[in-house]
Amino acid sequence: MLQINILYVGNIKDKFLADAVAEYEKRLSSSCKLKHIELKEEKPPENPNDAEIAAVIRKEGDRLLQALPQRSYKIALCVEGKQISSEELAKKLADIPLMGTSEITFIIGGAFGMDERVKRAADFRLSISKMTFTHRMMRVILIEQIYRALNILGGGSYHK
Amino acid sequence: MLQINILYVGNIKDKFLADAVAEYEKRLSSSCKLKHIELKEEKPPENPNDAEIAAVIRKEGDRLLQALPQRSYKIALCVEGKQISSEELAKKLADIPLMGTSEITFIIGGAFGMDERVKRAADFRLSISKMTFTHRMMRVILIEQIYRALNILGGGSYHK
Repeated sequence: MLQINILYVGNIKDKFLADAVAEYEKRLSSSCKLKHIELKEEKPPENPNDAEIAAVIRKEGDRLLQALPQRSYKIALCVEGKQISSEELAKKLADIPLMGTSEITFIIGGAFGMDERVKRAADFRLSISKMTFTHRMMRVILIEQIYRALNILGGGSYHK
Repeated sequence: MLQINILYVGNIKDKFLADAVAEYEKRLSSSCKLKHIELKEEKPPENPNDAEIAAVIRKEGDRLLQALPQRSYKIALCVEGKQISSEELAKKLADIPLMGTSEITFIIGGAFGMDERVKRAADFRLSISKMTFTHRMMRVILIEQIYRALNILGGGSYHK
């Protein structure tokens, strides 16, 4: 069974988003082992300047790099990554075990973005959209796409 | 004040998605007049063939065309549309009133997609992602992007 880790910075404060994640988690429980790795968010000062933002990104980057399951296939979510269709994501999830690991880690950066070192450490950079979403909203979108991808692979009826 | 209509086929069955829409709706109430226009979903037979799916799309297309507020600026959400950033969407929402209407209608198709006639009737085709989302999930994503766009225009602090 595929082991899927979702590694991210910060917790979900909004109940309506947490409920959405919990629901997809439940639906995923029969098709993969899902693990959330939640890292502490770095609090910037109010109205942070560029250097202060860079410091937040760097500190959160340190934490992400340290927590990254090294033997897993690592997929970093970032706007400059490659856009693929849901079917292509499904194919990717099916192909990864053939490359020697059945563990996949999706990485979501913090409120100010993801450290370049984390992007470089990833095996694949995935872009969901040209639009910006909160990193919290991104968790909902990602988990729905993982559910969709595994459903495509399993021949399920979850459709558009 | 901008009038924003969200025209779509089908209701949101999942409570966790309905809660998300309700929350963004509340946050939007001070910056635009938001109106939901919910149309009846056409139920296909079980395991529909291509002709049956086409019939669903056509019937839902009839309803969408009939309900479309003619004098509004019409934005159809479809995967083959143009991808723009959140900042570009904000600019678009700011520019539309300069073109003579302060009413904007976003259109979301049904479970099987959107009739080509509806796409042709739109002033702009917007693609959020190469990935497929349920049309219900798309409502959450869209309303969050509208909130983000109006926040960008208002100089708000809602960030990534």
